[in-house]
Parts: sequence; structure tokens; C-alpha cells
Amino acid sequence: MYRSWIAAAAATLLAPAFAMAADLRIDANAIFKPIDAASVATAVKNNDITAAKIELGQKLFFDPRLSKSQIISCNSCHNLGTGGVDAGPTSIGHGWAKGPRRAPTVLNAVFNVAQFWDGRAVDLKAQAKGPVQADVEMNNTPAEVEKTLNSIPAYVTAFKAAFPSDPNPVSFDNMAKAIEAFEATLTTPNSRFDRFLKGEDAALNDVEKKGLRLFIDKGCGGCHGGVNIGGNGYFPFGVAQKPGEEILPAADKGRAKVTHDAADEFVFRSAPLRNVALRAPYFHTGSVWTLEEAADIMAKDQLGETLSKEDLGAIVAFLGTLTGDQPKVSYPMLPSRTKDTPRPQ
Amino acid sequence: MYRSWIAAAAATLLAPAFAMAADLRIDANAIFKPIDAASVATAVKNNDITAAKIELGQKLFFDPRLSKSQIISCNSCHNLGTGGVDAGPTSIGHGWAKGPRRAPTVLNAVFNVAQFWDGRAVDLKAQAKGPVQADVEMNNTPAEVEKTLNSIPAYVTAFKAAFPSDPNPVSFDNMAKAIEAFEATLTTPNSRFDRFLKGEDAALNDVEKKGLRLFIDKGCGGCHGGVNIGGNGYFPFGVAQKPGEEILPAADKGRAKVTHDAADEFVFRSAPLRNVALRAPYFHTGSVWTLEEAADIMAKDQLGETLSKEDLGAIVAFLGTLTGDQPKVSYPMLPSRTKDTPRPQ
Repeated sequence: MYRSWIAAAAATLLAPAFAMAADLRIDANAIFKPIDAASVATAVKNNDITAAKIELGQKLFFDPRLSKSQIISCNSCHNLGTGGVDAGPTSIGHGWAKGPRRAPTVLNAVFNVAQFWDGRAVDLKAQAKGPVQADVEMNNTPAEVEKTLNSIPAYVTAFKAAFPSDPNPVSFDNMAKAIEAFEATLTTPNSRFDRFLKGEDAALNDVEKKGLRLFIDKGCGGCHGGVNIGGNGYFPFGVAQKPGEEILPAADKGRAKVTHDAADEFVFRSAPLRNVALRAPYFHTGSVWTLEEAADIMAKDQLGETLSKEDLGAIVAFLGTLTGDQPKVSYPMLPSRTKDTPRPQ
Repeated sequence: MYRSWIAAAAATLLAPAFAMAADLRIDANAIFKPIDAASVATAVKNNDITAAKIELGQKLFFDPRLSKSQIISCNSCHNLGTGGVDAGPTSIGHGWAKGPRRAPTVLNAVFNVAQFWDGRAVDLKAQAKGPVQADVEMNNTPAEVEKTLNSIPAYVTAFKAAFPSDPNPVSFDNMAKAIEAFEATLTTPNSRFDRFLKGEDAALNDVEKKGLRLFIDKGCGGCHGGVNIGGNGYFPFGVAQKPGEEILPAADKGRAKVTHDAADEFVFRSAPLRNVALRAPYFHTGSVWTLEEAADIMAKDQLGETLSKEDLGAIVAFLGTLTGDQPKVSYPMLPSRTKDTPRPQ
């Protein structure tokens, strides 16, 4: 009797908190989606994901011999140890050239509407071909990559296993497909935010819940929604006011270069925010080094709002809950070069 | 009766082969040693190897933030996926500078008499401090490295755990000790040659056994002996005749730069030959791309002998049996930078 009275009183006292969490969850689930097996399974198009492809793709992802210098691999700029990006601000490539934009993270990239900051690659297999050829990145050619792969017997065997019905398995296109297969495994499920979305009230503390409420109510979720909390559409940068040249340089017109439509000037794919706490510096210029400052800029320049230090802190605390389980990856042993392998240049 | 006759006849017929293998094994064991737990345990001096140190050292080995640009890690030039070296000929470092000598392999380096081609570092913890500071490599300073490590709370915790009795655990010296602890795990036991040394006749085929016999009888083991099949002493390059400028440039006097003794001109630490088949190009200049050519040069320039193509092939076949089990390494998740972490330059 005494116990049930306590329980009843506690239920009454706690009811508002429970109700608040439940409301917040309903609102959040209308905008965001947790990472689960279903979201991964539907994310890759036109590329059957097999164990043989993933294993091959993992080797290729880490193989610097895909670059002309043979010292730059996918992992050089999309470092799996540091949130799937490099130290920034923008990447350093062949000949110590500096890239024009910050490397986007490879983690959860499979969920993005398209790849690169301007969405110029429709998917990860299209994306994978870009940096291998870009003169300021790996600076190689498809023909030279195919020559390298064909010169290494273990790669030839692995391509045959990964593409058994392809009469020409060792190809630049199949390199990209294998890399996409591996990259599709690089998801970070089970973030505290995901656990909250699925019903675990205690996964977020009060400050983080307040941050989530602000993130929703201020409209951040309008551009940063879906399974990747962003990366799901194209939006103009500088809606309320234009950021400074350092953050949004006039020379980089964003998606307009892809669509040749003036309406797309300074339009970019919204940044996916999963694991965002792991990968300063921020924005396509990599010019902002803290989440506090990045959130402040977004509030002012996109929403026309100056948030209090407390509100910014709450939003940053919420963003910290987007860090999920990082992929466990073994460092692959790469098959040896032979006398026929092209030499580094 | 019939069976025992067969067995007796077989034993008689096979006796010379068995005896030959036994003689070869006796001769080989007089020069070489297999990798075993005992050889590893005694290899590291003045640094207690603990699990906490190894775990920290593994993170540091893969952390590009130890470099000024924050894109070059130990693994960039000592790539564990390609025999513990990069693609060569010599490494590319800060500002795309080319290093003066080929990166030596980190695999089994713990067994070497000293580190670097000229032995200028007494051990791996002394070695680890070199490339971090070299302007053509990682181009950083001890003070800046310590600032970086101290700015990352998870590193501070890890250093405390690895150096529990040190009042100043986060130090450049301890960084080097942790890296040494990890590198001491990078051994490649169980090569076919090791199994032969331990008594497994069938571990080498006839051509490989012939190559081993030639390797011993021609005197190769005089410089390439011990547990690392080399790396065990200093020897002049060009005993019988001086190799060409491309292989042995006049400007690089080798160990003489360390000892300031004219007798050490063109003296180098002998190359350790374990896993040698995995890591072309060869010599300190990285100027020779096949083992056949490297063995031919050694025979001519060190021994004054021109070996037949068949003998060279047998020696190369034997060298292939020195490839051991490559270390299984998980790619470490690195602790995140903070607002106090120095920025890449």
C-alpha cells in the first residue's frame, strides 16, 4: 500500500518529464531517423554488396598505390581514425597541393542524397573516381590504376571473386564499386541520439534534450534532417546574411558550378551532422574550428538569430550525442607490387 | 613383410635427402635464428612493455597530428599494409620534400642492432623522435607535440595509464617509448624459413633449399644473419667493386657521418631481409626494383661473383621464404582534437 502510493506519487511527479520526452521524441522522429539495418540496406543502388566486394574495397581504400605518388590513399583524407576526415582545413594532395574544399566525411556518407559538397557525384561509386584523378589529390588516371591492379596477381584474383560475372573484372569502374561496398559499411549506429529516437529517455540528459528542442524549434532540422542529420538536400549558405569571405569565399559558387543555374549560387549540400563533434574544422572551407562558433554562424547567417551562450551550449551538447559507434576496421595487408607495377611518380 | 620392405627401401632412398636437409638446418641454425617469444622478450631495453603502452603507442603510430601538417603519421612511411615501408624510392614528407634514404621497414625492427641505415639511433625509442622532427619528414617540435597531446584529454589519460609512476607522463620521451612498445609487437614469426629452422623439412622446396645453401656457402649470411637475417651489424657497401652512383651516391657517406671515422665511409647497417620480397625498391637509395637485380648486385659488388641466372633464381626463391605472418592490427580510433589543439600548418 505504502509502496504503491509512492509509486503513484512518483508517476504523477514524473509525468511531465516523461510526457515532455515523449513529445520531443515524436517531434524528433518526424524529422530524423536512426541508423538501422533497413536504412543501410536501401542506401546503395546499382551495386550488389557482397563480402568479396567489401573485402576488396577495404584494401583499395587503404592502398596508396592508387595515387600517382603511391603515398596517398582514400584514407589519407578520409581518415577512419579521426571521424572519416583529415585534419584540414582542406586536404593536401599530390605535390603538396591544397584542395579547394574541406574533405567531407566518409562515415555514413552512404546516406547522403549525393556526394561532394556540391552533390556532383550521384553516389559513392561515382565519388570514388574523382579524387583518384584530381590533380590536386591523387593525380592518377584510370588507365594507370588498371595497369597497377593488373600487375598484382592477388588483386586480379580478388576482382574476379568480387565481380564473378564480369568478363573484364579488373576495371576502374569496378574499383569504384568495391570502394563503395566497403564505404557502405562505414556507418556509426547506436549514437545516444539514435537510442533516444528509439525510446530510451535517459540516453540524453536535460541539457542535450534542451539542445534537441532548440535544434527542432529554431528550424535547424529543416536542412539537417533524415538519417544522416543533414546531407539530404541542397540549401543556400547565407540566407539571412552572407558570412565573411573566409567562410564563404565569392569564388566558390557551390552547386551552381554543377547545375549552371544562377539560382544555385552559394548553394551547397547541407552538412551531415553525425559525429560532427569528431571532425573540426567546419564548413566547406574548414575555416571554423569549434562547434560553438559554427552553430553561432548558422544561427545568425541562416536563421537571422543571435542565440544566447546557454542555448548555443545546449545545441552543441545535443550535437555531441550524434557520435555513434565508430567502425571497427582491421588494417589490411595489401598484396605486393611486382616488377610490372608502375613506379611512383 | 612386403610393407616393411617398402618402408625400408623408401627410408634408404630418402636418407640422402633427409641428411641433406638436416645438414642444411645445422648450418642454417649456426647463422640464423627463428623469431620466437624469447627473441622478442629480450629485444627491448630500458622500456617495460605493458598493454597500456602498446595501446597508446598504436594510436600514436597512426596519428598524423604528430606532424606539423597533421597529415603524416609514422604509418605514412612505415606502412604496415606494405611490409612496413612506403612505395619509395625514398619517402615524401612535409612540403612534398623527398627524404635522402629509403624508409627502413618497421617490421621486426626491434631485432636490429640499432636503427636507421647508419645506426645513428640506438633503439626504436630513439629512432621514433627523429622523423617527428626532421624537416623533410614530419617537421614538428617536441614542444608542439607535447602541446598537442596535452590538449587532448583522452591522450592525457592514456599517458597516465601507460606511465603511472612518471610525475610528468605526457612527454615527447614517453611518446617515443609508447611507440617503441607498439613497434616491438610488429614482428612476423612463422615464416616458412623459421619453420624449416625449427625442423620442418617440407617448409622449403628444393629450389628454396638450394637458395639457402647458396646463401650460406657464398657468404651472404656473413652480413645478413641473426634473428632478422641482417640488421645485425655494419658493413662496407662495395667490397669487391663500387656500385654505380645511382645505387651508392658519393655524397652519402653512410655511417662515417655518425662515427666521424673515415674507415666508416660507405659503411651501412646490413639490410634485414625478413619480408624482403614485400618491399621493393631496395638499398638505401631505393634504386633497384627487383630482388633478382638486388641479389645480382650484392653478389658482384660484395662478393665479386657473377652468379648464374639459375642460382640467382634459387636465392630469390629462398628470400621469398622469409615472409612471415604479418601483424594483425586494428585501425585505431584516435581521440578528438579540442579547441586547444595546435592547428595544422
